Amino acid sequence: MYLMTPGPTPVAPETNLAMAQPIIHHRSPLFMEILGEVRADLKYLFETEQEVLIFAATGTGAMEGAVANLLSAGDTALVVDGGKFGERWTELCNVYGVKAERLAVPWGRAVDPKAVAKMLDANPAIKAVFVQANETSTGVQHPVKELAEVTKNRAGTILVVDAISALGGYAIPMDKWGIDVLVAGSQKAMMLPPGLAFAALSPKAWEFVKTSKLPKYYFNFAKAAKSAEKNQTPYTSPVSLILGLREVLGKIKKVGLEKIYAHNRRLSKACKAAMQAMGLELYSKDYPSVVLTAVMAPAGVDGQKVVAELRKKGIWIAGGQAEAKGKIFRIAHMGFIDTVDLLGTIGGLEEVLNALGYKVQPGAGLKAAQEVLAKEAAV
Amino acid sequence: MYLMTPGPTPVAPETNLAMAQPIIHHRSPLFMEILGEVRADLKYLFETEQEVLIFAATGTGAMEGAVANLLSAGDTALVVDGGKFGERWTELCNVYGVKAERLAVPWGRAVDPKAVAKMLDANPAIKAVFVQANETSTGVQHPVKELAEVTKNRAGTILVVDAISALGGYAIPMDKWGIDVLVAGSQKAMMLPPGLAFAALSPKAWEFVKTSKLPKYYFNFAKAAKSAEKNQTPYTSPVSLILGLREVLGKIKKVGLEKIYAHNRRLSKACKAAMQAMGLELYSKDYPSVVLTAVMAPAGVDGQKVVAELRKKGIWIAGGQAEAKGKIFRIAHMGFIDTVDLLGTIGGLEEVLNALGYKVQPGAGLKAAQEVLAKEAAV
Repeated sequence: MYLMTPGPTPVAPETNLAMAQPIIHHRSPLFMEILGEVRADLKYLFETEQEVLIFAATGTGAMEGAVANLLSAGDTALVVDGGKFGERWTELCNVYGVKAERLAVPWGRAVDPKAVAKMLDANPAIKAVFVQANETSTGVQHPVKELAEVTKNRAGTILVVDAISALGGYAIPMDKWGIDVLVAGSQKAMMLPPGLAFAALSPKAWEFVKTSKLPKYYFNFAKAAKSAEKNQTPYTSPVSLILGLREVLGKIKKVGLEKIYAHNRRLSKACKAAMQAMGLELYSKDYPSVVLTAVMAPAGVDGQKVVAELRKKGIWIAGGQAEAKGKIFRIAHMGFIDTVDLLGTIGGLEEVLNALGYKVQPGAGLKAAQEVLAKEAAV
Repeated sequence: MYLMTPGPTPVAPETNLAMAQPIIHHRSPLFMEILGEVRADLKYLFETEQEVLIFAATGTGAMEGAVANLLSAGDTALVVDGGKFGERWTELCNVYGVKAERLAVPWGRAVDPKAVAKMLDANPAIKAVFVQANETSTGVQHPVKELAEVTKNRAGTILVVDAISALGGYAIPMDKWGIDVLVAGSQKAMMLPPGLAFAALSPKAWEFVKTSKLPKYYFNFAKAAKSAEKNQTPYTSPVSLILGLREVLGKIKKVGLEKIYAHNRRLSKACKAAMQAMGLELYSKDYPSVVLTAVMAPAGVDGQKVVAELRKKGIWIAGGQAEAKGKIFRIAHMGFIDTVDLLGTIGGLEEVLNALGYKVQPGAGLKAAQEVLAKEAAV
């Protein structure tokens, strides 16, 4: 199974071996030393001096935590809703009695920071802006840096960013940009199996935690931060995944974030050039994601069919979700993915499109990708 | 590290290898087939015809789910509090605005079902009884079967059992006994790394779900049940842990629950006989746990010292928690543990106690354990 899907992504054999080590006790000095190392390396990845909280959960758990730990029932939040994961913020607000002012963004488009500023001006009661860094359902990167510029000088409003499919894929320097809450998950650009969720909070966000009245227990951020100081987690630590996390973070640190991000940009450019050479249109009109290429299925071709036919070759890409279903397909190039995987996928796609009646000159996409790869030095 | 601790417990090498397989996509037919198999095998383990919900979390997450999915703010619950994990139910009720009527049970004792019946008679508003099957902090098994007899004919009250350290260790036939909610975790008698939580609900409990008004999202039971029907989980499935789960459940089914429980009883008897032969007193006065032996440290010996000295030999047992700290030590024999591990631990304990000034005839405990093991046939 060649996983070119936006999570879960492939896990390197050495990471799998790290996780296959015998279980060690989560209150042992050995494990606490490992957790100490992981805590430091997570700060490097998040580009923050704040604690990065670790939960045994998938990313959605940390998203729920962000709502439950920062707000109270009756509060108002602005939700940037430009895809399936934007909708999740609204659902979470609804569940907790937080009034969600929805800023609808057409699928395939990025939010306009000016529109956010305007809504905040119009309603100073808005306590939080919820957004995705990378909207996985549309392949669009929302302009998080610019959004932080809107929120950082407003004392009563925090910016909460779901970077589940983004962190580790491209730079989202939390402290430098002034992001208040950054949420991530293990199974995408972080090259691990699903099962770990992360959240880091700015000092401003920690102030919000103090006044939040919503119920929380398993995802209690203050409790997690207190345990972290002692190199522990509040409940039993997911030992094996943490061993994998240490392995992955060690590798990321050794290679360096800049090189990893340059590698991803190179793959992304090559993939997008290939699609254009095949006469295909990108679905993401603004800020196409660097970790994901969302493509319009050509007229007369069902996007789901493209996905299904590629699967027969062992290549897993993603289809469209909800309103984009059948209209698009999505090729992820995040995490443990290299040019071999990408070229194989592009080649397979050429064959599949031809078989489905959309005529592509064999090798047209591959040639365009190769040209980009030749021009942009491997990192 | 020889893990004779009540979680995490050792994971078998073949389980580690199962989890080290390449990641497969959680929406693929292959994974859905695996999840289908796991669902069936979980019903076998829980001895229920109901769906067993799976969460990427540790057991505490499913405990929180049991409160948030079954009750509403202002409801009253009876909490059996006879140790550290009993306290957790009270904390959870407090967080969610559920009034917890605490039935305090002295540490080391089991709850008296008649006392529960009396409280339910006195306060018909009590909607749920929260209890541990095996109170890990004291090594006591609460009489869950008898508690179910108290609750099962009361239409307005359900019995919620935390079996995190019990399930897979000894029989807790959910349907037969009439337990309404059974919660479990992966890292104890289930022989997996931490990271999976489980909950199964009786039809009566599902009726309670319908009227519950507490907020829940990640641990939403109804949503999890709906996804399960399609062999999916609501959010990204913890793929590697599920592969491990399939391996473990396959093994459990092949060996058979009865044989596993007989094996555990045999180890438990041998361990307890060894302690008595060494002149030590059990901490658990009623219903000593079959998966855990809690022992009073002899007069003048600090229980924490016993634990620390054994660790120097690579043997990990647990100390006492909260009010039992220093007074006791706890030897777990749950999951992937055999006579070799047990005898090694008993031998190490003899040496450590002698070194700490409590004189034990070398081999006294070992001899007693061997006699039990010889008498009770290996299974």
